[in-house]
Amino acid sequence: MAPMKLKALAASSPAENEDDGLPLERSVGYQIRMTHRALQRYLQIKIKPHGVTLGTWYFLRALWHEDGLTQRELSRRIGTRESTTMTAIVAMEANGLVRRVRNDVDRRKQNVFLTPKGRRLKTKLLPLATEVVNTATAGFGERELALLLGLLATIQRNLEPVVADETGESELDIT
Amino acid sequence: MAPMKLKALAASSPAENEDDGLPLERSVGYQIRMTHRALQRYLQIKIKPHGVTLGTWYFLRALWHEDGLTQRELSRRIGTRESTTMTAIVAMEANGLVRRVRNDVDRRKQNVFLTPKGRRLKTKLLPLATEVVNTATAGFGERELALLLGLLATIQRNLEPVVADETGESELDIT
Repeated sequence: MAPMKLKALAASSPAENEDDGLPLERSVGYQIRMTHRALQRYLQIKIKPHGVTLGTWYFLRALWHEDGLTQRELSRRIGTRESTTMTAIVAMEANGLVRRVRNDVDRRKQNVFLTPKGRRLKTKLLPLATEVVNTATAGFGERELALLLGLLATIQRNLEPVVADETGESELDIT
Repeated sequence: MAPMKLKALAASSPAENEDDGLPLERSVGYQIRMTHRALQRYLQIKIKPHGVTLGTWYFLRALWHEDGLTQRELSRRIGTRESTTMTAIVAMEANGLVRRVRNDVDRRKQNVFLTPKGRRLKTKLLPLATEVVNTATAGFGERELALLLGLLATIQRNLEPVVADETGESELDIT
């Protein structure tokens, strides 16, 4: 990572005094949102023929990565309200993708496990995510990739202390 | 921008043969999503005391930037279905933030204009977005900022041809 100096974005153009103090082209927030949208949309196009929605995708992805998570852990990983997670898991269970198992140690908790069918989808679907990322980062060298991931990690670290107390209480949902 | 060489992400670790061919830590898609979530969540915390939701925020932001957009143009800018845009605009009209005016040239279209109240919110709320971005990019120099914006722009350009035909038909919604 390149050395950093302390210099805040748009500090030289206060929003109060100008027509648009934070132009969309220069807003990291807006550009992250637009990039996220394009990535989601392409992924959606790719997975739709396999009968998987974006809503299901994130849960499958998390469980392929770490099978047996509880509903609360899934909510935290994915950033959904627990009620949304519950609805998604019930639908996925009805589709034979997961099964819920009551936790032996804490009977109030349920662990979510992939069924063989849910596990099998990984082989078919994960390469599609790789394709999406490859298309998105076409022309990037290892250096650009490392830079991008490093800068995104820094942003997440910077925001951690100010958003940490909101976990599980977010208004955000996926569709 | 640094020179780029042609090298695709994860090309050396095919998902089919490994436990997790696209580790979340190395997935640009996943990291963009997590960064987006953190930014949205912090913005939400900031604007909530002003009675503005994230759903309203994006429409205000677009109209502050370019007043008088049609509902279709708003949908395209923000990435919402036209029905979602309609619902949001009706609610914002009821709150006295915007008014809809039938287009003189094409009577089927309606332009959405900010009311003085909607315009005034800009002075109060836009600095909050600047604060969110400043917190997120604390420690970034101009160089890192330019690099990040450049890489995000490249990703959006790379995805443009493959997602272009989906505009207005997206499953994505904001809440």
